[in-house]
Amino acid sequence: MTHAFPFSAIVGQDQMKLAMILTAIDPKLGGVLVFGDRGTGKSTAVRALAALLPPISAVEGCPVQSATRAACPDWVELPENAEIHEYPTPVVDLPLGATEDRVTGALDIERALVNGEKAFQPGLLAQANRGYLYIDEVNLLEDHLVDLLLDVAQTGENVVEREGLSIRHPARFVLVGSGNPEEGELRPQLLDRFGLSVEVRSPDDIDQRVEVVQRRDAFEMQPDKFLKKWHREDTRVRGAILTARDILPDIKVRKRELRDCAELCIALGSDGLRGELTLLRACRALAAYEGAASVTRRHIRRIAPIALAHRLRRDPMDEAGSVSRVRRALDEVLA
Amino acid sequence: MTHAFPFSAIVGQDQMKLAMILTAIDPKLGGVLVFGDRGTGKSTAVRALAALLPPISAVEGCPVQSATRAACPDWVELPENAEIHEYPTPVVDLPLGATEDRVTGALDIERALVNGEKAFQPGLLAQANRGYLYIDEVNLLEDHLVDLLLDVAQTGENVVEREGLSIRHPARFVLVGSGNPEEGELRPQLLDRFGLSVEVRSPDDIDQRVEVVQRRDAFEMQPDKFLKKWHREDTRVRGAILTARDILPDIKVRKRELRDCAELCIALGSDGLRGELTLLRACRALAAYEGAASVTRRHIRRIAPIALAHRLRRDPMDEAGSVSRVRRALDEVLA
Amino acid sequence: MTHAFPFSAIVGQDQMKLAMILTAIDPKLGGVLVFGDRGTGKSTAVRALAALLPPISAVEGCPVQSATRAACPDWVELPENAEIHEYPTPVVDLPLGATEDRVTGALDIERALVNGEKAFQPGLLAQANRGYLYIDEVNLLEDHLVDLLLDVAQTGENVVEREGLSIRHPARFVLVGSGNPEEGELRPQLLDRFGLSVEVRSPDDIDQRVEVVQRRDAFEMQPDKFLKKWHREDTRVRGAILTARDILPDIKVRKRELRDCAELCIALGSDGLRGELTLLRACRALAAYEGAASVTRRHIRRIAPIALAHRLRRDPMDEAGSVSRVRRALDEVLA
Amino acid sequence: MTHAFPFSAIVGQDQMKLAMILTAIDPKLGGVLVFGDRGTGKSTAVRALAALLPPISAVEGCPVQSATRAACPDWVELPENAEIHEYPTPVVDLPLGATEDRVTGALDIERALVNGEKAFQPGLLAQANRGYLYIDEVNLLEDHLVDLLLDVAQTGENVVEREGLSIRHPARFVLVGSGNPEEGELRPQLLDRFGLSVEVRSPDDIDQRVEVVQRRDAFEMQPDKFLKKWHREDTRVRGAILTARDILPDIKVRKRELRDCAELCIALGSDGLRGELTLLRACRALAAYEGAASVTRRHIRRIAPIALAHRLRRDPMDEAGSVSRVRRALDEVLA
Amino acid sequence: MTHAFPFSAIVGQDQMKLAMILTAIDPKLGGVLVFGDRGTGKSTAVRALAALLPPISAVEGCPVQSATRAACPDWVELPENAEIHEYPTPVVDLPLGATEDRVTGALDIERALVNGEKAFQPGLLAQANRGYLYIDEVNLLEDHLVDLLLDVAQTGENVVEREGLSIRHPARFVLVGSGNPEEGELRPQLLDRFGLSVEVRSPDDIDQRVEVVQRRDAFEMQPDKFLKKWHREDTRVRGAILTARDILPDIKVRKRELRDCAELCIALGSDGLRGELTLLRACRALAAYEGAASVTRRHIRRIAPIALAHRLRRDPMDEAGSVSRVRRALDEVLA
Amino acid sequence: MTHAFPFSAIVGQDQMKLAMILTAIDPKLGGVLVFGDRGTGKSTAVRALAALLPPISAVEGCPVQSATRAACPDWVELPENAEIHEYPTPVVDLPLGATEDRVTGALDIERALVNGEKAFQPGLLAQANRGYLYIDEVNLLEDHLVDLLLDVAQTGENVVEREGLSIRHPARFVLVGSGNPEEGELRPQLLDRFGLSVEVRSPDDIDQRVEVVQRRDAFEMQPDKFLKKWHREDTRVRGAILTARDILPDIKVRKRELRDCAELCIALGSDGLRGELTLLRACRALAAYEGAASVTRRHIRRIAPIALAHRLRRDPMDEAGSVSRVRRALDEVLA
Repeated sequence: MTHAFPFSAIVGQDQMKLAMILTAIDPKLGGVLVFGDRGTGKSTAVRALAALLPPISAVEGCPVQSATRAACPDWVELPENAEIHEYPTPVVDLPLGATEDRVTGALDIERALVNGEKAFQPGLLAQANRGYLYIDEVNLLEDHLVDLLLDVAQTGENVVEREGLSIRHPARFVLVGSGNPEEGELRPQLLDRFGLSVEVRSPDDIDQRVEVVQRRDAFEMQPDKFLKKWHREDTRVRGAILTARDILPDIKVRKRELRDCAELCIALGSDGLRGELTLLRACRALAAYEGAASVTRRHIRRIAPIALAHRLRRDPMDEAGSVSRVRRALDEVLA
Repeated sequence: MTHAFPFSAIVGQDQMKLAMILTAIDPKLGGVLVFGDRGTGKSTAVRALAALLPPISAVEGCPVQSATRAACPDWVELPENAEIHEYPTPVVDLPLGATEDRVTGALDIERALVNGEKAFQPGLLAQANRGYLYIDEVNLLEDHLVDLLLDVAQTGENVVEREGLSIRHPARFVLVGSGNPEEGELRPQLLDRFGLSVEVRSPDDIDQRVEVVQRRDAFEMQPDKFLKKWHREDTRVRGAILTARDILPDIKVRKRELRDCAELCIALGSDGLRGELTLLRACRALAAYEGAASVTRRHIRRIAPIALAHRLRRDPMDEAGSVSRVRRALDEVLA
Repeated sequence: MTHAFPFSAIVGQDQMKLAMILTAIDPKLGGVLVFGDRGTGKSTAVRALAALLPPISAVEGCPVQSATRAACPDWVELPENAEIHEYPTPVVDLPLGATEDRVTGALDIERALVNGEKAFQPGLLAQANRGYLYIDEVNLLEDHLVDLLLDVAQTGENVVEREGLSIRHPARFVLVGSGNPEEGELRPQLLDRFGLSVEVRSPDDIDQRVEVVQRRDAFEMQPDKFLKKWHREDTRVRGAILTARDILPDIKVRKRELRDCAELCIALGSDGLRGELTLLRACRALAAYEGAASVTRRHIRRIAPIALAHRLRRDPMDEAGSVSRVRRALDEVLA
Repeated sequence: MTHAFPFSAIVGQDQMKLAMILTAIDPKLGGVLVFGDRGTGKSTAVRALAALLPPISAVEGCPVQSATRAACPDWVELPENAEIHEYPTPVVDLPLGATEDRVTGALDIERALVNGEKAFQPGLLAQANRGYLYIDEVNLLEDHLVDLLLDVAQTGENVVEREGLSIRHPARFVLVGSGNPEEGELRPQLLDRFGLSVEVRSPDDIDQRVEVVQRRDAFEMQPDKFLKKWHREDTRVRGAILTARDILPDIKVRKRELRDCAELCIALGSDGLRGELTLLRACRALAAYEGAASVTRRHIRRIAPIALAHRLRRDPMDEAGSVSRVRRALDEVLA
Repeated sequence: MTHAFPFSAIVGQDQMKLAMILTAIDPKLGGVLVFGDRGTGKSTAVRALAALLPPISAVEGCPVQSATRAACPDWVELPENAEIHEYPTPVVDLPLGATEDRVTGALDIERALVNGEKAFQPGLLAQANRGYLYIDEVNLLEDHLVDLLLDVAQTGENVVEREGLSIRHPARFVLVGSGNPEEGELRPQLLDRFGLSVEVRSPDDIDQRVEVVQRRDAFEMQPDKFLKKWHREDTRVRGAILTARDILPDIKVRKRELRDCAELCIALGSDGLRGELTLLRACRALAAYEGAASVTRRHIRRIAPIALAHRLRRDPMDEAGSVSRVRRALDEVLA
Repeated sequence: MTHAFPFSAIVGQDQMKLAMILTAIDPKLGGVLVFGDRGTGKSTAVRALAALLPPISAVEGCPVQSATRAACPDWVELPENAEIHEYPTPVVDLPLGATEDRVTGALDIERALVNGEKAFQPGLLAQANRGYLYIDEVNLLEDHLVDLLLDVAQTGENVVEREGLSIRHPARFVLVGSGNPEEGELRPQLLDRFGLSVEVRSPDDIDQRVEVVQRRDAFEMQPDKFLKKWHREDTRVRGAILTARDILPDIKVRKRELRDCAELCIALGSDGLRGELTLLRACRALAAYEGAASVTRRHIRRIAPIALAHRLRRDPMDEAGSVSRVRRALDEVLA
């Protein structure tokens, strides 16, 4: 098994790291879209997240990692004495060329041929339940498959109606898509369905570049030594995530902050109400991560750019980038 | 099982809620098309309808939920002692990527391979019999499949002629399609085959937005408490629907109102007679819901926009929206 | 089984009803094309025809409804004691999505897999033998399938050369196609191969519209009562068709009327001789329906528009519709 | 069995009838292309040819109608006591939708599945050996299939290299293709590979049209009586064809006529030497049909238009049709 | 078996005949491309070559005609007592519609189904080993297949990696492709991979044309007599080829002629070094055919046009054809 | 077995030879892209590399050539007594027309059919593990397959998720792609993922050309003698590669050289950090090959062109080729 680069050893890229931590606290936030040129370490970051995440407890042999026997889908045949163990949070990588039936699951051909049974063989969506599903270069994926993944990510359920199968199982995962804006855009409808978006860049600063290169080189030449060095910091972040999950339901959201969110979205002209709902939830997760009692305007300021920037309509009269437009609206509304 | 958002807790959206109630009273009205931007709660509303609908009584094990043994298709092999039970009204969701054979039903591959029998495995159209079939973003569905669904919805019968099968079964359901006008239009021929159409928007009003966000947040954070709060109102609506179904055949339609309908359609230049027939039936259903004895001009005024607006030809000289044109014609004809 | 709307209860639409009666008298007339906007009752009329047609006598269990054992194709395995019974004239509806192999018939997969036999499973063309084959929106059908259907309709024989099968069987049927001129035209080659064409419109007259809507509403609310009311008139038409079939071979066609037909076609510049042959036969059928001894100019006047209008070449200098051009030519030639 | 219209009862169309007679005398002439508008009786003529052709003697059960046991392909398993009988000259009709494997022959799936043998099931090319293969609307056929048919027609051998089969059998047939010039042209390469081409038109003359219509009507109303009437004339033509076949090798071709042919082709600028070879052979066949001892300039005059017109390059400076250009060249060269 | 037209009886076409003789002496020269209009006897010439070529000795039953048991590929199961016999040099004709798996060889389906073995069934590339592979109209073949054939022709080995097979066998053959420049060009990359190219034309001279037509007519009317007449000349050419093969390794190539070749290629600006290598080898083969001791400038003059003309880049400033440009460069370099 | 041309006998082409040697020292450098016109010996060079590479020790029967039993993937069933042997470094040639499942490996159909087992059959990626994978004309390969290959090459692992298989195995290989810039470009994203790029040209110098042609001719006429002549030099290079591998981890990289690399990349505006990382590693490999103790500016000068030239953005204002731009930047930064 190859080891992932430690999450904490990533140089800079604070927005991206924050977005990932927030989805680890509240997985219902709905996916992260990471924009950036090639070579900016997008896939490294996602693979790093795997090493950071706290483990889950799940029933042995359950293909969707259910927490209890009762929560297993009815089509699963569990061994009598299946026990509950701790497992790493699943981080599933959608490999290039994965077919739709391997993603959603499909008829188990072997059992069909050998035993004449029509059994379901779970796919990547089952593997990703309670975890992360990573798609590199989501803009290169077929629209059809992106639609399907977003649909499942949103409903939290995978419904398979094909080859005479009629199967459903939970598929609650955080979708992380990386994209290169130079290679074809995502349709606005798809953008809107991602909860958060961040942009990553290569550092311009010589020292920072040398630092990045040195850390990667050190990691590749002597991985064990490098992992050991960063273990403590990764452990600290994991602890903070677990604490935040616990106190999340207790975070208060006051009317004033709710109105701030609504005014902000109206000022930005973002369609629908998904932006508002995501902004609210992400602020609550940030407050929990910081140990705050309630959501404040400071949280809104911090979160709005990553929750709203990808939902703005193109404004041909306004040359500012969408992040700048969000910041400008923040200044006006929260003035 | 995840719970649906309560129908009555939907903020505003009165036209849409009325259209859905009318199809629950008279399922032959012929489908509802819900237009609106993304994020306006279209799919929430349809899923909410499921919780509201009164149950049906059906033969145990019948794949098309027949009310009596005699009504079961001849290819169904019922258990000897199949009883009649109450079941929730079926609300079938057409999942993305469902293949045509899963929709219409197809050869049961398992039985073909194992027993060498050519048996029929019913599809989603069978599951939807006597209930609702929901298609999200109907404008993204292949024309071919839309044609097929509308054809079955209209004739109330699913005819399968493929793979050496020659099967028919009742498939009486209300088709509910949501569409986003920004993503490609429906052909006029398809529009005309939907009975009713409504448009939904995100609210512009800050207070209403905050109300929507608060209700959704409350539902997601504490679903049980929220469902309990709205249970009574949902029950009231369900009762009114059942009463309306009973008295529907007794509602009178007088010559004068028939002539009103005809004049209205001629004034609007709507093609064919489907508009007139739908207008008549929807007015009768509304009268029944209100407990009225006969259809009046008031019912025509209320129903005409949702029964006729999607059947108008584009008029390049008339910049008014189609709903406005219907209202103007109402003013002239019913003056 | 749902009941068809009674043929006689159709309001107006005389050309269409005449065309259908003529093909019932002489099925070799070669198909009817029904043009009209959506909602004008095209499919209602064809389904109504089913209820009107006289029964045929056919060998029990013969897949092509042969009149005698000897006439059955050699690949049919009849039961020893198969009797001859009366059956309704077949009216086969080509369902949307029917595949070519289901139309023409194909290898019987079940028997191939189970018994290792290469048997033929007859398709819709076999079912339609000696009856009607109805295609809704023939202009939306793939060219390939339309070609195939017209070819079989013309030769009266279905030849299947595929999957190692080499089968032929009689397939004499009247093809009825409905089309909406707004949705793509038929190629002239296809038009020419239909025997007759008629156009249907929604009535403009308020009283007629109210009559149509009332009859349809009455039929849908109380079908039994409505069918009873119109039974006698349908029976009368059926009797007249049977009488006409008997006397058809005795109708005389004189040289003068033959020359009239030829001159008419030359005046109209219709390609080939199919127009002339159809005009002659349709006049003979009309004469038989009216009980006349021979074809007269009056018959030619009545039939020419429905036999010739769809065979005219577009004339960019002549703005008159094709039916008007036929009438004008009639006035000149028969003056 | 439906009867074909008698060859001799065809009104006019002399070029087409001549071309067909010539290919019956010398099948190596290489195919006939029949151009004409729809409704001009092209397919009637080809089907008429079937009734006219003299029978062939062939080994019972041989799929390629070999004249002797020795001539049967080695993959054929003849019954021990297979006798030689007279059979009608095969006239095979390429049905619409025939697949390539049914045309060339393919693996016999039944035997493969049941006996595990890889046997060849002969296709339409085998059936057509020593006879005719008719393609209606050859311009609508896929290029790929036309190429294949012309290739086989030219080499006289069908080579099947697919599905692990490696089979060859004689496939000497005359290809007759009908085409409608309005529906897409044939590539010059394909034109050149047909031996002869003729054009057919509907008659403009009233009396001739009435004659055509009367004959067809008489044939359709009373086929037996009509066939009897024309039997003698068809028999006479068949006899003349048989005599011509016998004397064909004895017809002389003198140097002078060979030079005429070469000069004619050079004057017309026809590519390659196929035109010259066909012209020579067709003249020889005509001479044999007329009982002449050698080919004369009169034969060249008669044959050149049907042997060369379809091989001319388009000449944008010369508005004359290709038949007229051939006649003009004849006048110059043979002056 | 039909007989081929004798090689020596071909009128004119000296370049083409030379090119074919050279490849018979040194098969590694790398393929011949024959350009010419239709009807110029390209395929006749290739088929004629078959009759001319000297036989090879090969192991009985070896699918790639190996000269010795040891040279057979390891996947071949030879009979114990397989002997070595003389066989005609294989000349394989790529039939239209041959599939890729029939070309390269593929899984033997019969054995897979019946015995459950994964055996290789050799394809046309195996049949062509040590011989010729002829493709008519190579410009109509799919690029993909042309690439594959050229690749195998160059490496002399067929590598099959599909359907779970991993097979390799020698496939040393001369690829002969005929092409019609009017029907789409070959990509420069493909042109460059053919060793030699020649152009053929129909003769303009009347006497020559009459000679061609007479010879073909004589061959078709009385093949045996004609073959006898030309047998001796064909035998003479075959003998000369065999002698040339023997002395080929002894032909000297001096530095001066090597420099001539290099200067010629630089002067012509031909890319890469394939032109030079082919020119060298073809000169050596010609010297051997003529019985010369070493390559001289005369050989270079004779060979350069057929070895280099198809490798020139288009020069828009130079209107001369590519053969003329080669001759001009010869005059300059060898002056 | 055909012999490869000796690596050392290649005339000139120093950049290409260096690049290949570097990847033999540090396979993680990430692939070599060889640009050049046709006929410049690209594929010869790669095939030559095979003869040069030192052998690897691997477990007998392991489909991915694992060095130890423990390193074999868990789905491999090794024989009990599998020993460890020396094997040639694998050099796998991606044959034209190789299907994706043959590349990645797929379900073993034979075992599935015969034993009903779902076993994995390894593909070319398995064969290439610990070696080289060569793709001729990588720009002609489908984007999809190139993406897949680069992805596997980068992660060093082949993940197969299809047909119900879920397999992973190490696939650490150096990808060598040859490309012809005239035949379609590679996307910048793909370019960036190759570690090194070199350009090859035919020599312009007469003497060098004659030398190339003579060596190739000598090799083809008398391969054994030629190979013997160059054996010693090839052995010397192999030895130097093995030594360099040993000392690679000990080569020092100082801060100054790291800053040089960073400044160079910023000056060139190359996206991301892959260029920097590759430059660093390739310098280290070169230092090891030369037996130096640490990376110096001289190494950077030598390596930068082949590590960076293919990563530059097109600069429309700068007409210099990309190699020249790299050299110019070197002069500025390292001044």
